[in-house]
Amino acid sequence: MIKAYAAFKPGGELRPYEYDPGPLGAHQVEINVEHCGICHSDLSMLDNEWGMTEYPLVPGHEVIGTIAAVGGAATHLEVGQRVGLGWHSGYCMSCDSCMSGDHNLCANSEATIVGRHGGFAEKVRASAVSVFPLPKSLDSATAGPLFCGGITVFNPLTQFDVSSTAKVGVIGIGGLGHMALQFLNAWGCEVTAFTSSLAKQEEALKLGAHHALSSRDSSALESVTGHFDLILSTVNIKLDWNAYMSALKPRGRLHFLGATLDPLDLQVFPMILGQRSVSGSPVGSPATIRRMLDFTARHQIKPVTEQFRLEQVNEAIARLRSGQARYRIVLSR
Amino acid sequence: MIKAYAAFKPGGELRPYEYDPGPLGAHQVEINVEHCGICHSDLSMLDNEWGMTEYPLVPGHEVIGTIAAVGGAATHLEVGQRVGLGWHSGYCMSCDSCMSGDHNLCANSEATIVGRHGGFAEKVRASAVSVFPLPKSLDSATAGPLFCGGITVFNPLTQFDVSSTAKVGVIGIGGLGHMALQFLNAWGCEVTAFTSSLAKQEEALKLGAHHALSSRDSSALESVTGHFDLILSTVNIKLDWNAYMSALKPRGRLHFLGATLDPLDLQVFPMILGQRSVSGSPVGSPATIRRMLDFTARHQIKPVTEQFRLEQVNEAIARLRSGQARYRIVLSR
Repeated sequence: MIKAYAAFKPGGELRPYEYDPGPLGAHQVEINVEHCGICHSDLSMLDNEWGMTEYPLVPGHEVIGTIAAVGGAATHLEVGQRVGLGWHSGYCMSCDSCMSGDHNLCANSEATIVGRHGGFAEKVRASAVSVFPLPKSLDSATAGPLFCGGITVFNPLTQFDVSSTAKVGVIGIGGLGHMALQFLNAWGCEVTAFTSSLAKQEEALKLGAHHALSSRDSSALESVTGHFDLILSTVNIKLDWNAYMSALKPRGRLHFLGATLDPLDLQVFPMILGQRSVSGSPVGSPATIRRMLDFTARHQIKPVTEQFRLEQVNEAIARLRSGQARYRIVLSR
Repeated sequence: MIKAYAAFKPGGELRPYEYDPGPLGAHQVEINVEHCGICHSDLSMLDNEWGMTEYPLVPGHEVIGTIAAVGGAATHLEVGQRVGLGWHSGYCMSCDSCMSGDHNLCANSEATIVGRHGGFAEKVRASAVSVFPLPKSLDSATAGPLFCGGITVFNPLTQFDVSSTAKVGVIGIGGLGHMALQFLNAWGCEVTAFTSSLAKQEEALKLGAHHALSSRDSSALESVTGHFDLILSTVNIKLDWNAYMSALKPRGRLHFLGATLDPLDLQVFPMILGQRSVSGSPVGSPATIRRMLDFTARHQIKPVTEQFRLEQVNEAIARLRSGQARYRIVLSR
């Protein structure tokens, strides 16, 4: 039996819960959970915002721990190894996306907390290909958020071959955005943070932004008309997207990482005249996660976290809901 | 003085008109117009749909003719040479876009019929870098439409490095779409035409489409869920763009060449989950126009035209407005 914390209804309090994971699959590993970040997707799943939650739900998909057991066919990991696990806990491994290295786009991928139990627990299981050895120099207590929030913002830099000479904007300085600023600074880019919080404008400069602007002030946006090669949006609210489009250079891209539920309402003419793109992407593939870990270790990039004990999970969730967290909450056992 | 046909008010009839072009610029050439296609943008300008028309307006920006005179600094063209001229009649030649080969994205580019006079005339002038020698094997009477409609649909194939193995949809089989089918077939792609006209579905197959579907039938679209690498929209009306997005593979792109005035109303989630893009582009750069001409000559691609005399320009415009033209109207002197 695995001891965990589960929610039993949408938005419900998490309570101790035990489940039998059955026999370990040949391609699986079992991880002794040491730390687990809390992502906004954990809240969306907890609240059944996407209509795909099964209760009881054990959230948690930014796991750091050590390998407790290895399935017979999982040859590249060994017991005791320090590892991380993110949003995906498995892939079909045979579709066109998987066979092209785009496992993150696999339509039959398995998500760590969808229809199965995640990392707010003493143990969690996952397909070995979705579990990654942690570079020595990374700190276990803060590395968890790299595996969902981190890879989500790192991924487009690789997907679109973002140049180190690019001027990049980041909308929303929270769990994702604060890591984006660090990655982009290390990548060599000119980095501008857009945030509605005056306090965060100052903090953004310390995290690697060269400039910080209000995300809601139209005159701030007008001051950067035609400035950006890429703008990454990490927010899930509606903003004036056509104004952000005007802030793009010709060939610029407005890229969505935050799943805003309102449709985008985009004007076509500015897209055509400037050959601009609007796009989105989820977390990254296993190969991209490995690239991120290597880059993170080399540049000593570190999620800024608030630490809670796993037993304080409800308090931690309330803190995340308050919007006050700086910047990612991590639960530790 | 140059004899031309001009409109004197929005939507007005074209009447004979003469203007003095002044001295020929050092970097300009003068073209003896032999043929000139009529593009939908000529109608938009004639009707002042974009609010930037100056009257009297001499439309026409799909010009075929011979060089009549060459400015002192224009060394790469000579009198008598057979040439084509499209939407752009000049570029600033010094901005980042121009210096990067993206002259078509130059914010200070000059358009053949914006604030100056175009090709519904005996002569027209343009910057020499925007005028292109016509390959020998191309027919003067039908080549004009390549220089605006043609390059508009050819351009994204080069911009996005479209693979010959790609599955590509074309929405709208008109002046642009009927050339897109030919280019894509020659490019090696699997080509699907989307059109609201049952008759055009059959014609599309003769033009190079492998499949033809109704553009407005939701069950037709459902039959190709997740099928396309690229969908090119050439229409300027509102369709169910989210349904077209669902027809894209992971990494797929919905690309706009037609300037629909309604905002796009796009859902973000499908973009994120499938790493899909939405984008647009205008006509191509000089270098891309040269690539197009070479490709067109090699594959003997030929716009399908209806021919009118320049004196019949009002009749020709009425025919274009009727939506019955197959597929591009060309005026000849």
